[in-house]
Amino acid sequence: MHHLLAETIQSGDWKNEKHVPVITAPQSVKKDETFDVVVSIGNEISHPNTLEHHIVWIKVFFKPEGSKFPIEIGNVNFSAHGESEVYSDYYGVVKTKVQTPGTLYALSYCNIHGLWQSSSDIKCD
Amino acid sequence: MHHLLAETIQSGDWKNEKHVPVITAPQSVKKDETFDVVVSIGNEISHPNTLEHHIVWIKVFFKPEGSKFPIEIGNVNFSAHGESEVYSDYYGVVKTKVQTPGTLYALSYCNIHGLWQSSSDIKCD
Amino acid sequence: MHHLLAETIQSGDWKNEKHVPVITAPQSVKKDETFDVVVSIGNEISHPNTLEHHIVWIKVFFKPEGSKFPIEIGNVNFSAHGESEVYSDYYGVVKTKVQTPGTLYALSYCNIHGLWQSSSDIKCD
Amino acid sequence: MHHLLAETIQSGDWKNEKHVPVITAPQSVKKDETFDVVVSIGNEISHPNTLEHHIVWIKVFFKPEGSKFPIEIGNVNFSAHGESEVYSDYYGVVKTKVQTPGTLYALSYCNIHGLWQSSSDIKCD
Ligand SMILES: [Fe+3]
Ligand SMILES: [Fe+3]
Ligand SMILES: [Fe+3]
Ligand SMILES: [Fe+3]
Repeated sequence: MHHLLAETIQSGDWKNEKHVPVITAPQSVKKDETFDVVVSIGNEISHPNTLEHHIVWIKVFFKPEGSKFPIEIGNVNFSAHGESEVYSDYYGVVKTKVQTPGTLYALSYCNIHGLWQSSSDIKCD
Repeated sequence: MHHLLAETIQSGDWKNEKHVPVITAPQSVKKDETFDVVVSIGNEISHPNTLEHHIVWIKVFFKPEGSKFPIEIGNVNFSAHGESEVYSDYYGVVKTKVQTPGTLYALSYCNIHGLWQSSSDIKCD
Repeated sequence: MHHLLAETIQSGDWKNEKHVPVITAPQSVKKDETFDVVVSIGNEISHPNTLEHHIVWIKVFFKPEGSKFPIEIGNVNFSAHGESEVYSDYYGVVKTKVQTPGTLYALSYCNIHGLWQSSSDIKCD
Repeated sequence: MHHLLAETIQSGDWKNEKHVPVITAPQSVKKDETFDVVVSIGNEISHPNTLEHHIVWIKVFFKPEGSKFPIEIGNVNFSAHGESEVYSDYYGVVKTKVQTPGTLYALSYCNIHGLWQSSSDIKCD
């Protein structure tokens, strides 16, 4: 029997569901202009940060309008969950520039609750 | 408008489509028995390995039967694509053990052709 | 013969040497107070960002004063170097909190020029 | 004061010290011949694999003889430490090919005991 990982990737409204990655980015940019993409988890409802239960990583992709293929912009790993009392917050910033309108995607992974996704459209002129 | 990254993840038959990750693992294991999961790309039709066009990583997950949540077993990055004439082949092995039947998933990323998935069921008794 | 990877990790002044990771973080924080660690490359002299030559990742560690062991706070991968005209800038932010004074370390990797390191002390009270 | 991450990277004999990454690779290869590099931890003395204490990743590099710069061949993350009773063993295989003699390096990270290194020379003709 054939199973698809894609079917296990969950989504929702980050205001109600703590796992959904929040993308904070401009709605519109200029071609070749560098801009920040902030990805975070728990902006409204915080997610645990313990050795037993934590967010491990968030990936950020951009798919140009009309293309089938998302391009990975960056990957952020949250590595510390209490070791020597050090904690990584679920917050990362990557900087990028693009030449076309398209869609930003975030994909995140909780070690207990699996894969979560969100997206944000971006205009470019 | 709301877009889903999951809809961009492609699949197919690795014998015809060079991007599909191949999972080589036992069909059946014993509880708590360590086994190898080999993930590779290009077993039948080879994929380019150049600075311009290459496979970047493969992730391996296991979802226990009846669970909604895939657990990441490992991630393999293929980092060298001709630097100092060093090349990473698209082949990795991770070792794991599980306690229940379930599904192994592979997710891979080509820097040009995006995300690809495959799966393999595994019995456990 | 026994070789040490540590001996290949380069350092220098980021104002003169474009590969050295720049750490921008507070010199002093309060216990349990969340703060930003910005890591970047090329603040003074920019580094190429092409498929042939680029920065691949920066890792951030914190070693509590008196400890021998650095704890990884985060890892940022810069994944896009011109694919579909998308570029990742060499800039990342991680957020963390600590309970003791210590040292922040950055370790970065250029696909041509290897491993580079820098550090920044941080007070905590 | 200036601190070097390199000074915190530990080494030793894997037969006595459980953290040292073990590199299993041919002593001699032919130019352009694909070969396996096995990296593992705990071959003689096993390392814990719990949520509280585990090996997180191993990186593999190759430095051509006469070059100053190690090239990253691969990175393997060990992601499961008991989630849904799934465990990742500290064992990975990457495949590569080279054109010159040189040194293979492994760098590994324990979430409690920090960074560890080892190396293995390889002839090539
Ligand atoms: Fe969770
Ligand atoms: Fe491709
Ligand atoms: Fe460089
Ligand atoms: Fe340890």
